[in-house]
Amino acid sequence: MAMTLYELAAADSSILFSPHCWRTRMALAHKGLEVETRPWRFTDKEAIAFSEQGTVPVLVDGQHHVSDSWTIALYLDEHYPGSSHLFDSPQARSYARFLNDWANRTLHPGITKQIILPLFAMLDEGDKDYFRSSREQRLGMTLEDFAADAEAALPALRAAMAPLRTVLAAQPYLAGDAPAYGDYIVFGSLQWARVSCPKDILAADDPLVEWRQRMLDLYEGLASAVPARAA
Amino acid sequence: MAMTLYELAAADSSILFSPHCWRTRMALAHKGLEVETRPWRFTDKEAIAFSEQGTVPVLVDGQHHVSDSWTIALYLDEHYPGSSHLFDSPQARSYARFLNDWANRTLHPGITKQIILPLFAMLDEGDKDYFRSSREQRLGMTLEDFAADAEAALPALRAAMAPLRTVLAAQPYLAGDAPAYGDYIVFGSLQWARVSCPKDILAADDPLVEWRQRMLDLYEGLASAVPARAA
Repeated sequence: MAMTLYELAAADSSILFSPHCWRTRMALAHKGLEVETRPWRFTDKEAIAFSEQGTVPVLVDGQHHVSDSWTIALYLDEHYPGSSHLFDSPQARSYARFLNDWANRTLHPGITKQIILPLFAMLDEGDKDYFRSSREQRLGMTLEDFAADAEAALPALRAAMAPLRTVLAAQPYLAGDAPAYGDYIVFGSLQWARVSCPKDILAADDPLVEWRQRMLDLYEGLASAVPARAA
Repeated sequence: MAMTLYELAAADSSILFSPHCWRTRMALAHKGLEVETRPWRFTDKEAIAFSEQGTVPVLVDGQHHVSDSWTIALYLDEHYPGSSHLFDSPQARSYARFLNDWANRTLHPGITKQIILPLFAMLDEGDKDYFRSSREQRLGMTLEDFAADAEAALPALRAAMAPLRTVLAAQPYLAGDAPAYGDYIVFGSLQWARVSCPKDILAADDPLVEWRQRMLDLYEGLASAVPARAA
């Protein structure tokens, strides 16, 4: 039986944008596991009440349900050891945990600044009040004030990605010769920006552009099915 | 025959402080390889002229010489596959490469600000002019001006270490249940600060303090042989 994945969606339910959900989507494809997507909105708390927490991704696998993209990745390698591994060793899992937390803490605030206004505009009408009030409380200012210095902040975001470029100068994927969960972590972050932001957060000559394209081509273009917002 | 490692030393040649040399020292101990240390000063370019570059660590292993701590780590696992591995898989090596570059780019500028004046004071007299002029040219200001906001900058340095704390909340070492090269990378950075800075760059209640102590206890207290500068 196929698994079910609750994934964050825009007003157009084919526009899946959450970085965390993309990590899980790519991980499932990596392992060749079939999954049925359930588009989910921020305010749709009842639909995932069974998970006893309020955010996605939530993966339902028969009698099991797992939430949090990192926990899901560990679950998949543990419960489906026969399929291609997301992590090839204990150290790889440990260091990928570092990469996951680094991406969340370093890339996500910078990306949020770039995308928050166009992302807000894409949301389902029913989500907009919730999104604005919860984010403005967290940020301590309006979405508009937070985004006001987006252009000035872009160089620092691009500079923070430097260690990714160092790794990719030596090999085609962050994981090595073939993609694995470390790639899905960072790709999730960039895909979130790609589908929501009219301006590409990567400069045209950034070597990360080529790697991102390799990621978009994986699994029969799984992630390229959601179009880029940039022209 | 034991290998020879050229390591950066202070005026007191027992005070070895380079983060890159400490990575190599710990890596050699991890693999159980004997090494003879040659204390080296910044201006002692002739002593390592054979390496065709001007910085340490330089490892001499029979007819081979290898420089750059990352390159040395790869060399050791490749040439001494029979001893304990520094990396347990290709992915682990890839993600550790990310961690290495992250530490150099993120931790090192912040640590430099904290330690540069006390470190300067510890240097051999023959190194001081070289150190001051090369660093001031790189920084675009005097050492004193660069260090002037050290106290104000310390919280950002500590905050940047957050992903390390996330990993260590789940396991005793960055590499997992046992230490490996990822631990030596970050330990090298903290050891550089520990031996040169009268103020501990870690807050007393930082969980990284316990991990650092575990690292200091490794290999019969190899790294604790150089005393902490902090009271």
